[in-house]
Amino acid sequence: MSPTSTAMQIREVGPRDGLQAEEPVTIEARVTLINALAAAGLKHIEAVSFVSPKAVPQMAEPSVVMDQIDRQADVTYWGLVPNRRGAEFAVEAGMDAITVTISACPVYNEKNINRTIDESVEAIGDIIEVADGRPVDAVLSCVFGSPYTGDEPTASTPELMTQLAGRGVTTFTLADTTGMATPQRVERVLEITGSDIGLHLHNTRGTALVNAWHAIGLGVRRFDTALGGLGGSPFAKGAGGNLGTEDLVHLLNDAGNETALPNDTGIDLDALMNAGPDLAEAIGHSLPSPVATHGPR
Amino acid sequence: MSPTSTAMQIREVGPRDGLQAEEPVTIEARVTLINALAAAGLKHIEAVSFVSPKAVPQMAEPSVVMDQIDRQADVTYWGLVPNRRGAEFAVEAGMDAITVTISACPVYNEKNINRTIDESVEAIGDIIEVADGRPVDAVLSCVFGSPYTGDEPTASTPELMTQLAGRGVTTFTLADTTGMATPQRVERVLEITGSDIGLHLHNTRGTALVNAWHAIGLGVRRFDTALGGLGGSPFAKGAGGNLGTEDLVHLLNDAGNETALPNDTGIDLDALMNAGPDLAEAIGHSLPSPVATHGPR
Repeated sequence: MSPTSTAMQIREVGPRDGLQAEEPVTIEARVTLINALAAAGLKHIEAVSFVSPKAVPQMAEPSVVMDQIDRQADVTYWGLVPNRRGAEFAVEAGMDAITVTISACPVYNEKNINRTIDESVEAIGDIIEVADGRPVDAVLSCVFGSPYTGDEPTASTPELMTQLAGRGVTTFTLADTTGMATPQRVERVLEITGSDIGLHLHNTRGTALVNAWHAIGLGVRRFDTALGGLGGSPFAKGAGGNLGTEDLVHLLNDAGNETALPNDTGIDLDALMNAGPDLAEAIGHSLPSPVATHGPR
Repeated sequence: MSPTSTAMQIREVGPRDGLQAEEPVTIEARVTLINALAAAGLKHIEAVSFVSPKAVPQMAEPSVVMDQIDRQADVTYWGLVPNRRGAEFAVEAGMDAITVTISACPVYNEKNINRTIDESVEAIGDIIEVADGRPVDAVLSCVFGSPYTGDEPTASTPELMTQLAGRGVTTFTLADTTGMATPQRVERVLEITGSDIGLHLHNTRGTALVNAWHAIGLGVRRFDTALGGLGGSPFAKGAGGNLGTEDLVHLLNDAGNETALPNDTGIDLDALMNAGPDLAEAIGHSLPSPVATHGPR
């Protein structure tokens, strides 16, 4: 993907954020999913998480998963890391890049990650030390609203970003953890953060695609999506699925070359569609993504 | 609703386009729904259809429904009318305004309405004669793509509109009957038709809200929506639900007075939310609308 203004970077989070919202599936099913995503042209895949398998059994055995996949040289495999110990495992497993999470809402951080913001910042500092130069993307949850405190904590977000950048975080992804964003709120946040961020959107209230579209118009070029629109946090009730990879790719591909819109996703929609049935079988129910359900136009 | 640039006109089509996609419900349930919609602030309601009850049993007894509702003086009650006979019944039932349908795709028109375009234009001419000065809105189906012929028939749409305006059609609504629109296609069509049209969007591929949002940015101020996101055509397989009234109102209301966006819907979201459970009970399943499911932000 060339770094032109029309290039979109889609990071697939289905193997992590998607599957952690489901009953645990086999290692084989996780490996199959990751391989299918790489084959469809995804260049960034959040493949595993190094959290405690007691807390999140769906993400157990990340090193085994990474050992078994057909590793592609041009794909960046991301691993979610909660602490120094996790970072050591991630480095050992050969992750290309690391995601860390912290909330823009201190109440959410304490209730869901069981840490104060300062403790999370410290933990991220530890992770960066161990990461040894690997890219570390900080995913900030609840940037567009918190189920505990309501509206978006716009004041604290840039402060937190500055603090984390000082610790060595290389990029930021703003997450709408429980689907509270609307286009107008996305615009207000981007006025503060600028558009050189990623967006991680949940479709709880049906707004993920419209928020993505509005953000694209404002210059955002990085999005997290999940095959089939799976997702939701095991720690955030009613979080709703992620923006479906099929749904965003369908929209962008339809722009074709007829418009000035960014559409160079490099992703094969047919290959994505073909990966859906295996995933649906593994999780035991149909995929929520409308394009997965009804097919492309 | 004052005709300012920020006023939005939402026509609720749930009692017609929503319920015709379900198993027939009782007259009482239809009356309850229409009354609840008027109480929530909807000023335009497509309440009934004067099609053959053999073809569409869900819409039987339109006159009885109109007799039983608590008629509000400031609400425009629309009835769908297929022919001269239906128009006579609609006038007798005291409808305020009439919708007629014709397809932008001749193949779709013949396969689904069983008429050539010319025959449909003639029938609409007949209806307008009987309508005796009542507003007649022509809903053009498949404007953004046809399941039979593919891409949007942009060339024929303005021609058809001119022809129908000559017959006395007062306004036009462009329908995305099977959910084939994307924002870029909406934009291309509006470049030809102008923005003084209504949009009737289906959410088959999850794009109804993003299409509405993009159209609002281009000046469109009239939308058809259905409570709960019900809908689909009994004649168009896989048509998918309408844009949910809750979903559009939720988005617009969240704009508040902080932006220059149109947000004067005059519709009470809480009242809409309260109307959902009765509707869900009547149809025997939950509503597809994400906001109906998860509640407002």
